[in-house]
Amino acid sequence: MDLSSADFQEAVAALRAAVGDDHVRLSSEDRARHSRDTIPWQQTCSVVVWPGSRDEVVAIVTIAARHALPIWTFSKGKNWGYGATMAAKNGAAIVILERMNRILEVNEELAYAVIEPGVTYRQLSDHLKVRASGLWADCPDSTPEASVIGNALDRGLGHTPYGDHFAQLCGLEVVLANGVVIQTGGAPADGPAWHTFKWGSGPYLEGLFSQSNFGIVTSAGIWLMPEPEEFEAFFCEIAREEDLPAVVDSLRRLAFAGALRGTAHLVNDVLYMAMVMPYPRDSRGGEHRLSDEARRALRETHGFTPWTLTSGLYGTAAQVRANRALIRKELRRYGKLTFVDRSDLPVLAWLTRLIQRTQNVRLASWIGGMVKNLLIGRAPMAVLDLIPTTVDVLRGVPGDFIVRFAYFKSRGGRPSGNVDPARDNCGLIWFAPVVPLTRDQVNALFDLCRPLFGSHGFDFSVSLIVVNPRSAVALMQIFYDKSDAEEPARAAALYEVLCQRTLSEGYQQYRANVPNMHRLFQAVPGYQRLLDEMKNAVDPVGILAPGRYGITGDVSS
Amino acid sequence: MDLSSADFQEAVAALRAAVGDDHVRLSSEDRARHSRDTIPWQQTCSVVVWPGSRDEVVAIVTIAARHALPIWTFSKGKNWGYGATMAAKNGAAIVILERMNRILEVNEELAYAVIEPGVTYRQLSDHLKVRASGLWADCPDSTPEASVIGNALDRGLGHTPYGDHFAQLCGLEVVLANGVVIQTGGAPADGPAWHTFKWGSGPYLEGLFSQSNFGIVTSAGIWLMPEPEEFEAFFCEIAREEDLPAVVDSLRRLAFAGALRGTAHLVNDVLYMAMVMPYPRDSRGGEHRLSDEARRALRETHGFTPWTLTSGLYGTAAQVRANRALIRKELRRYGKLTFVDRSDLPVLAWLTRLIQRTQNVRLASWIGGMVKNLLIGRAPMAVLDLIPTTVDVLRGVPGDFIVRFAYFKSRGGRPSGNVDPARDNCGLIWFAPVVPLTRDQVNALFDLCRPLFGSHGFDFSVSLIVVNPRSAVALMQIFYDKSDAEEPARAAALYEVLCQRTLSEGYQQYRANVPNMHRLFQAVPGYQRLLDEMKNAVDPVGILAPGRYGITGDVSS
Repeated sequence: MDLSSADFQEAVAALRAAVGDDHVRLSSEDRARHSRDTIPWQQTCSVVVWPGSRDEVVAIVTIAARHALPIWTFSKGKNWGYGATMAAKNGAAIVILERMNRILEVNEELAYAVIEPGVTYRQLSDHLKVRASGLWADCPDSTPEASVIGNALDRGLGHTPYGDHFAQLCGLEVVLANGVVIQTGGAPADGPAWHTFKWGSGPYLEGLFSQSNFGIVTSAGIWLMPEPEEFEAFFCEIAREEDLPAVVDSLRRLAFAGALRGTAHLVNDVLYMAMVMPYPRDSRGGEHRLSDEARRALRETHGFTPWTLTSGLYGTAAQVRANRALIRKELRRYGKLTFVDRSDLPVLAWLTRLIQRTQNVRLASWIGGMVKNLLIGRAPMAVLDLIPTTVDVLRGVPGDFIVRFAYFKSRGGRPSGNVDPARDNCGLIWFAPVVPLTRDQVNALFDLCRPLFGSHGFDFSVSLIVVNPRSAVALMQIFYDKSDAEEPARAAALYEVLCQRTLSEGYQQYRANVPNMHRLFQAVPGYQRLLDEMKNAVDPVGILAPGRYGITGDVSS
Repeated sequence: MDLSSADFQEAVAALRAAVGDDHVRLSSEDRARHSRDTIPWQQTCSVVVWPGSRDEVVAIVTIAARHALPIWTFSKGKNWGYGATMAAKNGAAIVILERMNRILEVNEELAYAVIEPGVTYRQLSDHLKVRASGLWADCPDSTPEASVIGNALDRGLGHTPYGDHFAQLCGLEVVLANGVVIQTGGAPADGPAWHTFKWGSGPYLEGLFSQSNFGIVTSAGIWLMPEPEEFEAFFCEIAREEDLPAVVDSLRRLAFAGALRGTAHLVNDVLYMAMVMPYPRDSRGGEHRLSDEARRALRETHGFTPWTLTSGLYGTAAQVRANRALIRKELRRYGKLTFVDRSDLPVLAWLTRLIQRTQNVRLASWIGGMVKNLLIGRAPMAVLDLIPTTVDVLRGVPGDFIVRFAYFKSRGGRPSGNVDPARDNCGLIWFAPVVPLTRDQVNALFDLCRPLFGSHGFDFSVSLIVVNPRSAVALMQIFYDKSDAEEPARAAALYEVLCQRTLSEGYQQYRANVPNMHRLFQAVPGYQRLLDEMKNAVDPVGILAPGRYGITGDVSS
């Protein structure tokens, strides 16, 4: 897209006419801000547009088709580490739906909300709180300013039993590339079961609009969780690295037994450090990364364990009692197991505020340390540093404390609020293959990836997220220093080799970053062809995010 | 399709060469047998083909494309009341996948099987039993000879926590119209998480292959349920018709609370009668249907209630105890509540055999009546007539006792075995709108449909199936006498008006019968267009079941 071309100028003029001058921006600063992320790749956009309504989205699509201008839509664009508001190629128009932020309905009886893409986790959580709703919205442990719909369409994960966000979507309104607005499910407009029954009549099509570019979702039903009678958070500090295989099998059994209803998160020591302290550069002994011994020493000094598990218990008092017993029986052999129930929450809420207000990580850590003595009165439990915010997330209350781990290797330290790792030049790439939840499978994947981190001079950082009784997402973090002369290139090289090696072993990626989506289906040309044929049929000009999740609509070959 | 045309003869010769002479049949008897069902509409096929492998399916697709011969694929074709092996138009080739009946894998640790479309419920159940598997397969209450994959792709329902059959599919192998074989999920072939993680990478496409015609599924992963420590069936005999609205709200609360984990079935008195006795023609008093008074009298005589609820409890002993308490608290106010636990099962198994062996419905009913005295020793409980087979279905053991309700109005009585209502000229049309699970919504739907049954001279027969905490399928049965001079036309007329009235109110249909699929998306042309554009792109000749679920690929308008 030549920004000085008459065609582009005409397109911009039409966009201004459609959504108003204030909502079309193409200053170099605006363009730069929407072309960056924490990943070591970049694509520069041509213009940024903020429509205010579904009809304005339709108008934008029509203009884009007329001028063959590719538009990349983002709800809020907070998917840091996956590309933020970056397009797959230079020159795209970035369309951000954050002005469309109405909560259209909350149905208390049937436990769902209907919302627009600009609605954030904070907004939904606050809305439910203000109206004294009996419903909880799940949230991820990322920023409260992220879009509920955007995250769900990218299949993001939270922590409660509603933590598989895509699985909670039910009933989408979608603007297609031809400007037509459809409702999924196949019923006439606003049918009674649109937001209560997922499959609809005929093919179930909602999956087609997740991790893809077949349409722009302009509103959606999202299932909410009736507040359980009882809620407890629990934490297990896995004392011995060598217990990991057994822990994996325990988690599978607990998930099948229904004791683990939320998406349990098993975090390793490096990621744990990233959450509570700056990167311990001094402990590296001149190497690019920490040695096993250095990590062990850090664990001892700071009082955390090789792996830390967090999850929640939800249900009636009797159900929680039954499931707590199962969890205790399976997990207590691995290390300290702590349950935090509702009576602890007021103290924790107070401490959360205190910790969130302090800019000083050491102080926050110290306060956390104090909690363990106040609350538990036993031996050091580093996991308690994170308890207040983790407990909040486990009941769907968003906060930006945890996501500050993106600043792990930042020379500038962490902000106390207004977290924005993309703006603040943090270095982070997610890499997230899916692995069956057995000891052998998890071992095989880690044995494949861990040495690649090591040989590229990076610390192996991972959270194993139990998404169903049969699978976990192995969410790996490549933390790197963007200001370093060579780390970004090394991080990119690690990412490349991780992709190559895991794809050749047949792993699916839970989610992918924009500049690398084109490689996803390279090994399966028949599958790529199917996607591109369908894309070409419904978007022949190729205006809706061409290249998102590798889908281009190119059927020429 | 002109059966005498040279082109058709060539196609048949090619099919014979591809799958063997024995597996291509076009005698008038073979064609007739695959052109009929219990519904009052008919389409005549041209030829019936039984491929023996995926590669033979590919060969058939290639031949079909060359000769522009529409092929309608069925796994087993047991979807009685929805069309059996009927195509939407005359002249199609019927392709039945029952010879592809290998169980390719059973993964005990991750609780899934990988099977071909010809695998039946009975086969899978027996296979698990023989190998002393710790896994249960869910089954519907229809014939044990139905296909596990076929039912799941049509989104059939069972009774256990795995009763939403489509939701248990994970990892499909699909033959596309261009002859290419793909695996869903986007990973390279046979990736480790193919059968454990539903969404894959990029758009979730499995929904595209259910209730549709975008490809032929030639194998699939199906999730199985680890046998729970405890299992109990329970039955609630709702004594008062006027309690239905309150019962609906109770069911929703129990489902949200996780006490109802299976797909509870709430059966009305007419359907109950259909299960245990021939249609009481003599009670009609000269009318087409039973009056409210006649139904009340029949209930009193035979000892059943206006509504009967059946579902199961699954989990550890403590979980079952907790959930039983919740169920007791919610439901006992409505009528007799009976729990049947494992210790009752040996006796029940013996009785099941006895009941299944008797051809005499009255004797079967009498034995059932005896059980209630032996087992419970209290007042008459008609629900016990059905207990043995219902308890089996609630733990995934298939049987054909229940599906004999399709013979309700048959003059020839019910068979004791080898049940086949399509062959036996039974009259049954399913009509199954989806309704949100609230008293007002269920009332509104029933108030819409019940009078239409009445005004067309049919008894309102329905099973309200709780498919998730927010929705139920209102599975209605139009039982009619196929041998009657005018009932078939009246039944068809009732179906037509039910479709019209519910579609104009915005209801989705859970599942539809073949000759009426073309009307599904008439009110939503943009949605119809989207489906047809995609269909046309991947199947431009229109060989894969054109018209299934209304998808034709016609984009000419």
